[in-house]
Amino acid sequence: MSVAERGNDRLLRALRREAVDRTPIWIMRQAGRYLPEYRATRSRAGDFLTLCKTPELACEVTLQPLRRFPLDAAILFSDILTIPDAMGLGLGFTEGEGPRFARPVRDRRAVDNLGVPDPEGDLRYVLDAARAVRRELDGSVPLIGFAGSPWTLATYMVEGGSSRDFRHIKTLLYDTPDTLHRLLRTLSDAVQIYLAAQVSAGAQALMLFDTWGGALAHGDYQAFSLAYMHRVVDYLRTEAPEIPVILFTKGGGLWLEEIAATGCAGIGLDWTVDLAQARDRVGTQVALQGNLDPAALFARPAAIRQRVASLLAAYGAGPGHVFNLGHGIDQHVDPGHVTALVEAVHELSAQYHRPGPDPASN
Amino acid sequence: MSVAERGNDRLLRALRREAVDRTPIWIMRQAGRYLPEYRATRSRAGDFLTLCKTPELACEVTLQPLRRFPLDAAILFSDILTIPDAMGLGLGFTEGEGPRFARPVRDRRAVDNLGVPDPEGDLRYVLDAARAVRRELDGSVPLIGFAGSPWTLATYMVEGGSSRDFRHIKTLLYDTPDTLHRLLRTLSDAVQIYLAAQVSAGAQALMLFDTWGGALAHGDYQAFSLAYMHRVVDYLRTEAPEIPVILFTKGGGLWLEEIAATGCAGIGLDWTVDLAQARDRVGTQVALQGNLDPAALFARPAAIRQRVASLLAAYGAGPGHVFNLGHGIDQHVDPGHVTALVEAVHELSAQYHRPGPDPASN
Repeated sequence: MSVAERGNDRLLRALRREAVDRTPIWIMRQAGRYLPEYRATRSRAGDFLTLCKTPELACEVTLQPLRRFPLDAAILFSDILTIPDAMGLGLGFTEGEGPRFARPVRDRRAVDNLGVPDPEGDLRYVLDAARAVRRELDGSVPLIGFAGSPWTLATYMVEGGSSRDFRHIKTLLYDTPDTLHRLLRTLSDAVQIYLAAQVSAGAQALMLFDTWGGALAHGDYQAFSLAYMHRVVDYLRTEAPEIPVILFTKGGGLWLEEIAATGCAGIGLDWTVDLAQARDRVGTQVALQGNLDPAALFARPAAIRQRVASLLAAYGAGPGHVFNLGHGIDQHVDPGHVTALVEAVHELSAQYHRPGPDPASN
Repeated sequence: MSVAERGNDRLLRALRREAVDRTPIWIMRQAGRYLPEYRATRSRAGDFLTLCKTPELACEVTLQPLRRFPLDAAILFSDILTIPDAMGLGLGFTEGEGPRFARPVRDRRAVDNLGVPDPEGDLRYVLDAARAVRRELDGSVPLIGFAGSPWTLATYMVEGGSSRDFRHIKTLLYDTPDTLHRLLRTLSDAVQIYLAAQVSAGAQALMLFDTWGGALAHGDYQAFSLAYMHRVVDYLRTEAPEIPVILFTKGGGLWLEEIAATGCAGIGLDWTVDLAQARDRVGTQVALQGNLDPAALFARPAAIRQRVASLLAAYGAGPGHVFNLGHGIDQHVDPGHVTALVEAVHELSAQYHRPGPDPASN
């Protein structure tokens, strides 16, 4: 039974640029540390990876924000590094330091040795969680599946963890680009079958997180990040043509036209982008998702409401806007401020969706 | 005696968009930790702040890169945090942690208590260093002075040091913008007289480093960063009309037209910006400085040369280009790679500066 028949399909309609009654909203990292109930479940799990790998707990934290806030979508609780973990790189998380790989990938031989994980094999826990969430949601709101972009996954795999200067992967990029292209090709193979498997398990929309695409020089972004996201989009348009795919490159505001040209359904925008200009630049090709400064949630509810009003006005009338932050929600945000945000989006957006001619399609 | 009469004035000519024989190059943080002679002087000083505050040592490290590489400019060795230090915030540097202020500025009272430092008072060591450098350079290449942008200085002062989420200053911005505006006004007063004093002490070009402007939302950048840089530019155009001012907002590629409209002489570009598109966007209003990916210097000299060739071709023929990295040079770079960079820029750029009609002024 589809969500359209049973429940809230604002997100899917907005991504198809169809009319909605209110602008849909979900929040990147909505199942996360700012929620006390998340922290409780995580502490029950013991550590972050166990939480990710235990389907009933991953399902539980996926649903937590939906019990508090009238959000228009669920996003599967997981991590972008599940794929390199399943490739056998030895993933660990150290408190305050972020992810570390025991066996970084730094040369041709290491790249050649990488296999493409079978989603129903070492990644089955993700799909089991998706199936459980879909069951629990029971058509109330759609479920978003996701993966890291091939480039973003490669940065962690080559650097061995988070990085500020991307020294190892950039050396590979400049000195032995063929090796990096081979790694990115393997990763895009892995990402595309992983996302298709998430769809089979119940995901109704998909998002690629290209967190580090904005660290690339102009030209390199196109060759080493966008080209591989494009490849994933092409695959999914064949394998799961009804599923909208959102591409989000943090720091990618200069490249919106090229991102739109991949055939994705939506583009995620960070908060440096003017939503009105972005809409002008991409026309009616894609939906736009974003783009409140995540730090605006530190402000008082009245200030949050004012910022919501500005963003809704910047996008203007007509369909194709999915409200979100421009990056993940911060762990120090007061959940009460999220209530204010969601209410403001739903209340203030209705005026932009009155029946009548759609100004955007003129 | 002016540099134009005695020595290499490529930088000043390029910033005025006048014809040159080769594209000038200097490197952000060219006096820095990648040079063994810098590390030796710093260790002689004992710590970073003592190095900054001892004019003969600051002069020495300013000149070190010019002894190794045929660079087209010197930039005064100093730190952007000299101003808040002179305001009495208690600056310290901890190894690996970056700057810390003992007394962060977090409320209206703290903002109201800030004074504007007299450059020839608590900042005299900077001006003494500039005078010494100018004497030593003896007209060989121009000397660039600099300051942090008001917004960027404010981030350190309010956060108490480096930040990832800018939680405190963004809360101020959203909840009590008047307090932040007052702080930024005080800082722009301080920055403008400090830069004018650097000119009196010998600086022949000026640069404002807006390292964190790109952390602001669209709209907030204009109101909280650009407006105050504009104020500084206006002041300097009256007080030192012959001195070119370069504005550099890291992550500011979406806002080039607005930056150019301040009346600055040049815009610094980070490496995400397409130099050809940037030139189209700003026309002949300003010079452009940049924008090699700093990580390209980890690559082999042949790859560096290839990237230099691409950037020079992207800018194309005619004046107005100052070659630089898109951000400061990394401490792990091999100085031999810098030799390759400077040689490549000088050798490969000559073809773009042949006498004849200037395509850019058509």
